[in-house]
Amino acid sequence: MATETLNTDIRRLTVMIFILIKCNSLSCQQFIISFQTVSDCVVGHFYDVSSLSCVQCGEDQRASATGLACVCLPGHRVHKSNGASLTCQRCPPEKPAVTEDGFGCIRCPGGLSEEGTCLCPQGTVRVERDLQGNPLDEARCEACNGDGPAFSVPNNNGDSCERCQASFVNTSNSCVCTPPNVLAGGLCLPPNNLPSNVNSNVNFAELVFTNLTACQALGNMCVMNMHSFSSVTNDACGLFNLIFRSMAALGTTQDISYWRTNLPWLYYGDQPGLAGRVLQTDPLPIEFSFKGSKKNTDIKLISAVYDVRGEFLRWENVSGGSLQLCPDTALRQRAAYTFGTAYQESCDMSVSELLRTYPEPLFYDVFVDLSQGEARKLLAVPSLVLNQQYNGRYVNQENVKNWYLSRRVFVVDTLSGREKSLSSKPKAIRVAADIKLRFQLVPGTQKGQAFPPLLSVSYKDVFLTDLATQTVRVSFAVEYEMDQNEARKRTDIALGVMGGMAVLYSLLKTVSWKRRISSPLVDMETLLKFLLFYAGDLANVFFCITVGTGLYWLIFSKAQQFVSVLLPLPAQEERMVTYIGCAFALKAIQFLHKLILQLSVDIFLIDWERPRSKAGRTVNASGEAKRDPSPVSIWRTYFVANEWNEIQTIRKISPTFQVIAVLFFLEVLGFSNLALRDPWSTLERPPQAYKPPYSLTLRYALASTLWLCIGLLQVVFFTVFHERFVEDKIRQFVDLCSISNVSMLVLSHQCFGYYIHGRSVHGHADTNMEEMNTNLKREAESLCGQRGLLPNTDTQTFQVSISTRLRQQYDRIREPLGRRNGPSRLVDASSANPFEQSTRAYNTMNRFLGSVIDHAHRDMDYIVKDKLFLERVIGMELLEPNEKSIFYNDESHSFSDVLFYGNEATLLIFDTLFFCVVDLGSQSFVLAAVLTYVQQMIFRWIRGVLGRRNLANKTLVDERFLI
Amino acid sequence: MATETLNTDIRRLTVMIFILIKCNSLSCQQFIISFQTVSDCVVGHFYDVSSLSCVQCGEDQRASATGLACVCLPGHRVHKSNGASLTCQRCPPEKPAVTEDGFGCIRCPGGLSEEGTCLCPQGTVRVERDLQGNPLDEARCEACNGDGPAFSVPNNNGDSCERCQASFVNTSNSCVCTPPNVLAGGLCLPPNNLPSNVNSNVNFAELVFTNLTACQALGNMCVMNMHSFSSVTNDACGLFNLIFRSMAALGTTQDISYWRTNLPWLYYGDQPGLAGRVLQTDPLPIEFSFKGSKKNTDIKLISAVYDVRGEFLRWENVSGGSLQLCPDTALRQRAAYTFGTAYQESCDMSVSELLRTYPEPLFYDVFVDLSQGEARKLLAVPSLVLNQQYNGRYVNQENVKNWYLSRRVFVVDTLSGREKSLSSKPKAIRVAADIKLRFQLVPGTQKGQAFPPLLSVSYKDVFLTDLATQTVRVSFAVEYEMDQNEARKRTDIALGVMGGMAVLYSLLKTVSWKRRISSPLVDMETLLKFLLFYAGDLANVFFCITVGTGLYWLIFSKAQQFVSVLLPLPAQEERMVTYIGCAFALKAIQFLHKLILQLSVDIFLIDWERPRSKAGRTVNASGEAKRDPSPVSIWRTYFVANEWNEIQTIRKISPTFQVIAVLFFLEVLGFSNLALRDPWSTLERPPQAYKPPYSLTLRYALASTLWLCIGLLQVVFFTVFHERFVEDKIRQFVDLCSISNVSMLVLSHQCFGYYIHGRSVHGHADTNMEEMNTNLKREAESLCGQRGLLPNTDTQTFQVSISTRLRQQYDRIREPLGRRNGPSRLVDASSANPFEQSTRAYNTMNRFLGSVIDHAHRDMDYIVKDKLFLERVIGMELLEPNEKSIFYNDESHSFSDVLFYGNEATLLIFDTLFFCVVDLGSQSFVLAAVLTYVQQMIFRWIRGVLGRRNLANKTLVDERFLI
Repeated sequence: MATETLNTDIRRLTVMIFILIKCNSLSCQQFIISFQTVSDCVVGHFYDVSSLSCVQCGEDQRASATGLACVCLPGHRVHKSNGASLTCQRCPPEKPAVTEDGFGCIRCPGGLSEEGTCLCPQGTVRVERDLQGNPLDEARCEACNGDGPAFSVPNNNGDSCERCQASFVNTSNSCVCTPPNVLAGGLCLPPNNLPSNVNSNVNFAELVFTNLTACQALGNMCVMNMHSFSSVTNDACGLFNLIFRSMAALGTTQDISYWRTNLPWLYYGDQPGLAGRVLQTDPLPIEFSFKGSKKNTDIKLISAVYDVRGEFLRWENVSGGSLQLCPDTALRQRAAYTFGTAYQESCDMSVSELLRTYPEPLFYDVFVDLSQGEARKLLAVPSLVLNQQYNGRYVNQENVKNWYLSRRVFVVDTLSGREKSLSSKPKAIRVAADIKLRFQLVPGTQKGQAFPPLLSVSYKDVFLTDLATQTVRVSFAVEYEMDQNEARKRTDIALGVMGGMAVLYSLLKTVSWKRRISSPLVDMETLLKFLLFYAGDLANVFFCITVGTGLYWLIFSKAQQFVSVLLPLPAQEERMVTYIGCAFALKAIQFLHKLILQLSVDIFLIDWERPRSKAGRTVNASGEAKRDPSPVSIWRTYFVANEWNEIQTIRKISPTFQVIAVLFFLEVLGFSNLALRDPWSTLERPPQAYKPPYSLTLRYALASTLWLCIGLLQVVFFTVFHERFVEDKIRQFVDLCSISNVSMLVLSHQCFGYYIHGRSVHGHADTNMEEMNTNLKREAESLCGQRGLLPNTDTQTFQVSISTRLRQQYDRIREPLGRRNGPSRLVDASSANPFEQSTRAYNTMNRFLGSVIDHAHRDMDYIVKDKLFLERVIGMELLEPNEKSIFYNDESHSFSDVLFYGNEATLLIFDTLFFCVVDLGSQSFVLAAVLTYVQQMIFRWIRGVLGRRNLANKTLVDERFLI
Repeated sequence: MATETLNTDIRRLTVMIFILIKCNSLSCQQFIISFQTVSDCVVGHFYDVSSLSCVQCGEDQRASATGLACVCLPGHRVHKSNGASLTCQRCPPEKPAVTEDGFGCIRCPGGLSEEGTCLCPQGTVRVERDLQGNPLDEARCEACNGDGPAFSVPNNNGDSCERCQASFVNTSNSCVCTPPNVLAGGLCLPPNNLPSNVNSNVNFAELVFTNLTACQALGNMCVMNMHSFSSVTNDACGLFNLIFRSMAALGTTQDISYWRTNLPWLYYGDQPGLAGRVLQTDPLPIEFSFKGSKKNTDIKLISAVYDVRGEFLRWENVSGGSLQLCPDTALRQRAAYTFGTAYQESCDMSVSELLRTYPEPLFYDVFVDLSQGEARKLLAVPSLVLNQQYNGRYVNQENVKNWYLSRRVFVVDTLSGREKSLSSKPKAIRVAADIKLRFQLVPGTQKGQAFPPLLSVSYKDVFLTDLATQTVRVSFAVEYEMDQNEARKRTDIALGVMGGMAVLYSLLKTVSWKRRISSPLVDMETLLKFLLFYAGDLANVFFCITVGTGLYWLIFSKAQQFVSVLLPLPAQEERMVTYIGCAFALKAIQFLHKLILQLSVDIFLIDWERPRSKAGRTVNASGEAKRDPSPVSIWRTYFVANEWNEIQTIRKISPTFQVIAVLFFLEVLGFSNLALRDPWSTLERPPQAYKPPYSLTLRYALASTLWLCIGLLQVVFFTVFHERFVEDKIRQFVDLCSISNVSMLVLSHQCFGYYIHGRSVHGHADTNMEEMNTNLKREAESLCGQRGLLPNTDTQTFQVSISTRLRQQYDRIREPLGRRNGPSRLVDASSANPFEQSTRAYNTMNRFLGSVIDHAHRDMDYIVKDKLFLERVIGMELLEPNEKSIFYNDESHSFSDVLFYGNEATLLIFDTLFFCVVDLGSQSFVLAAVLTYVQQMIFRWIRGVLGRRNLANKTLVDERFLI
């Protein structure tokens, strides 16, 4: 006894030490096991789910069918079982068979099955216990009585008799289907009741159990066949239509003529044009509204769901994602059923996933839920199956007139592709790859009324090749459409009217141009010029129309309370995009034209300063001035030229700030969210919310409006505030002319240009700091005369129409200068030093122009007058400068027309269009901003460099001083 | 007969017309039906699924239990049935009961049930047919024999006897559980086998059916109780542990000491520190690699799935989304199992959706699949249940030392919240609201080795209040971690070393500054100055370290082949963010300091031009010069001052281009994708792919590197190409000085500054265009002397250390100018005209400085020398200008140090940091770009306006000429 206790203790100790060692040696224990699955277990082993490994079965045992447990070998009964383990015992030879429950042995009346149980002939049941549950010594095989009143057949287990299917009783008054009755699909049918050539992919027998749902099941089969039928073959749909026609007398259901009693409603009629009438006659009795107390954007779709056997399962809310195959959060999926939100989702679904999730197809009868309060009403939603064939034609892919609307759709069918048996693997599955719900607005509605939606479905057959990797692309979309013809007509009218006005305006410009170059001939150049002017005006027309249209959509689609407009679909936007492209191209032509004109203007700086020594003013050109001991300093001219060079590219706005500000509004403040195809006008969207696609129209409207608004704000800021209180470069330049005693003549046309009168009121400006300061001070205190060209006036800036005679004289003097850059450079060597020549020309020109301004030339005199209001408006001078040149007072510094400064409108619109066009092409505001900036930089650089060269050429100021 | 045919014809015609009318009146037919559901049908009506409406049942009928069909009233048998309709017949009084199949009538041995069938006492079976299926006249109630060898009880239908449950037979050798045996949960157990106070939410009886899976089921219950147990109460986990301990002798499964035979593996041991050892001892035998032929980023997780009854269902790939509750596409969900991709997804799940999708909980035993080729191995993944209680303490929310790892998790449990019966609605559900898979890299690995992952789960109880709207927030994340101590240590060392060097360098700068202001005292100002210098240097140190660290992460995390580093987690990035903040703040101080210094430099323009008349150069101040008939023109000085004004804010780069270019790279070219927390280095990601969160470190590294690179490229472009071939504003200014015969002296410190020698080699510059051109031409042809200060040298720019004496004289002459802006303006009236006074001071200064340069002052002479190399390096002059001032040759135009131009490094780094700090705060590169642009604009404007004012004050050039 003591030894035994000791032994037990030692054994316990050993176990404890063993466990301790285990725990300490844990660092080398990696918790790695070998990976075995049920299929890895060899014969005689079962898969032990608690240890996840194959374990040998006990004696006389083998693995069960699932492999997860052991069962006794055939001919062995269970002797003892405590759940986890069992022991088996061979049945004695006198009772060789095992009972159904496996615990007893029994004698058999016939043979033994492979599993070691008794075999009974077909049509009989095996009885192993008596009615009280006592086991029999020998099993009995009892035949079920198939005749009335028994009408019995063996049940599925084969252990008792039960009543046979009603069709057998009805048809042959027995459980045997006696000829001439026909046994089809597990039913016994009277003869001549079935078309001879019934043919379907689906095995009826396993699906159709009762008559109550048979018609539904037949309908489902027709739906699985994509509603296709022809009048020749007799497939499911043909059968359905046969029955449909034959049941005409039974009347209709729910007062709908296409819905026969006891039949599902699968088709609308096939009259031509019916589809259009169904879809566009009566609006939904719902008023959609985006805002306010009556806000109503919910599209309540509900569907009756049937399984493939035709059994009604439930009413299901479609917004729960019934039709949306792509997985997504409920919040985002629900966005599809918010009226006005263009919804578009597509993804690649794994085929194996589809097979797993949709073991059987479900069928949806979709309705719009019109319930309000107590009145519960449903409106049937017609569906358009794009794959539907009607006598071999895909009618639903044709014109709406030929459409054949239907009802009932399914999403995934993994059933009809199974061959022979329902448990076999399908060879193909059919997926509703493209589901689109389309709403159409009632034309001219102010109350948010829409026609009934159309559910358009396109099925796709996927042949299973490689389950593991195969995917199928599916998409679901909700679209909103309105009739755009009215809008298009209005655009066309506007385009016509404004285009016509543009022609007139361009003609006017051309005439004005002809006068300014004082050429009366109408030649090719005139035509070209007209086209160039017309390009600019037409660009403006296109721009106005597109921005106007865009703004219209932006405002109405985002601000409307009751739905009255819906955004154009992408396909309807093409015309708009074309217009924008035209506007941009034409504007670019205008811009380049202006740029080239600006780069070739004639400029001359007239220095009024005369030497202080009493050498006298020599009007005629001479070389004596050179010998003058104190020559007039050229630095004031340099200064003025340098400043002119600097103001060439300044603008009324800061272009870079413009780009950055637009970007800030669009991308940082979230204005870009306004361009989404939904009715919400909030700038911030929660990151987990559904983000609809962008509307090109709205993007354009938004970008152009923002660009114009910020541009205008900038212009206002610069002209009203900055130029008045901080710095006005243009006025500064005019002042500088005056202080430096230098006038400027800019000839933009042959006989037209601008004159800035800069004669110092102090007589001399070429002086030291002291005198300069005194002069400035005197002027500030109004102690000296006024700066104007005419005595006692302030007007320093003029538009000038010069007479041809003056222009000819001007050209004659300028000739040696022009030659310097002309092609005749080679002959220069023979003539006098070109350097000297040009200086002489400069001096001559200086004196000549000075004397002209001083009225010293009788034949080239001028008058000063105000421009008429009409002249200002049409931008043309009515008087011709025949005898005398005409100086028009010009307080508004219109000489800036030859600078970027005076062409802000053109530049701004050009930038706007550039930005928008890049954005339309790339759908990226950032890229558009970057490219616009680069474009601005390039053109400013071109204008700067070439303008400087032109300035240097024309004024003879060395480029080194234009810095 | 004829009448009858006619009648029929007429009737047909009527129907046809009726149909025609129907079809034509279709426009008023809205396909609207009233909405009825099963529950809407009143008594005696059934729900007709083909017409979706309630229809009255026939005579003697009522609706079936589902309401979708009619059945005969109790006491009525089915007379005839063709599926769609049936007729019923009352049973005769002699056979008042209806048979089970409903087709026959029968006499009863006892009473009738409510359904009109025969009632049998409990424990008996009802027999209505004989063994051959013939109906009996009277039903029989047979008692099942519960004793051996029959061991039978009635089956579920109550129509035959079958063998009773094995535990009854085993325990009491009968189908009755006789005392003292205990009937618990549908099992018959021997006495004293169950703890007395077993208590669980879940009803055992309905779950536990067989012993084979009982232990699994018990384990599952423990898991549903979140593995919590205490040594006091006996809940599921307590019971499990009781069994676990009692089964010690049975041995372990798979050589894992925590996995007992026949039991599921639920716990690792509870030794302190075990968790750490399990998690960090042995790496996974997998080498993760991001690139190359051995690319391996797949995390293959596999799990054994059990249902709540403990039955093994299947092996499931976890990457199929088993643990991810949020719906998403398979592609995106799979991204969670790509090594190195930080995955984070969370969403609000609708509770009703959860109830629908998870009618029963599934249990997952998660393993890493280590299979390679034939060798199939699994590694158990430990899980950490954060809600697990161990004797009332949440040990797993404490330190890792106290963690108690476990195994087996579930995702949604809608079962244990059901009270009383499994068909009742649950009061609460339990959801794994927060699942996190955490990988830790083996420290110092070069082969991509990681420790086994940890699955940390946090469950959440959701009490059901409002099914329709209730949601629960769930999230799933995969994190990758590596030990950052090494990196942190290295950063600290670098910071210490470089910080120390910065102190030295700042000291040096302070000393240099003291010399330049020629003040030997160490006062508060010196200390302040030192701190200011130190701020700048420390900012550079922080900047270097952060950019270096960032680049390290960027390069190593994106370019590594075998995984050797993993990005720091957001929590580990705090230190980095602090450093960046410091760098920015200090840099801002340095920048402002420099700005203020630049805005207060002393500038004087020395005009060398002397009047041409022989009035002689009067060195002493006098008023005679005024009377000079041809004074020296001030316009050259204006020109130079104007140009200086313009170059004040130019930089070596174009700041706007910088902003736009960085934005272009980041947002348009997609460089920002490099900052995503994944190992891929591609710039473009498909839109449907998963997008991991951004890493702050990488964003900073990317932004700063891009900014610096583009900045450097711009600097190189501008200095190497643009300044050489297009335009060099600084050199142009020096040239201009020379051409205009004006020198410039800039004093940035008391006794230190810069001198630009601009004395014209032609003697006069104040001349007309002809002479100017001649001069320029002569110089181009090298026909005149060189421009340098010393004869025959070219050096025009100098750094000057002036003697105190010179400075005092300078200050004395400048006094009247300074007074003009000083506070003593009120006394001006009494003194001479301030205007005159300052002009006189200007003239005096002009002459004085001119004569100093001309060596005319013996006591304020200067020498010209080269700077030593050491002096250049440390930026300090070693010689003190005691007797003579020293002019250091300075070819590199270092006078630009008082302009933005010479401080490009500071500006660039400041901009970089500004950009990065805004981005870190807002996570938006666009906003950062916008704000950086605005900041640049503001500071340029400040520098421009204030610099201009300073220039006007110091040089006496009227602001009107600085345009």
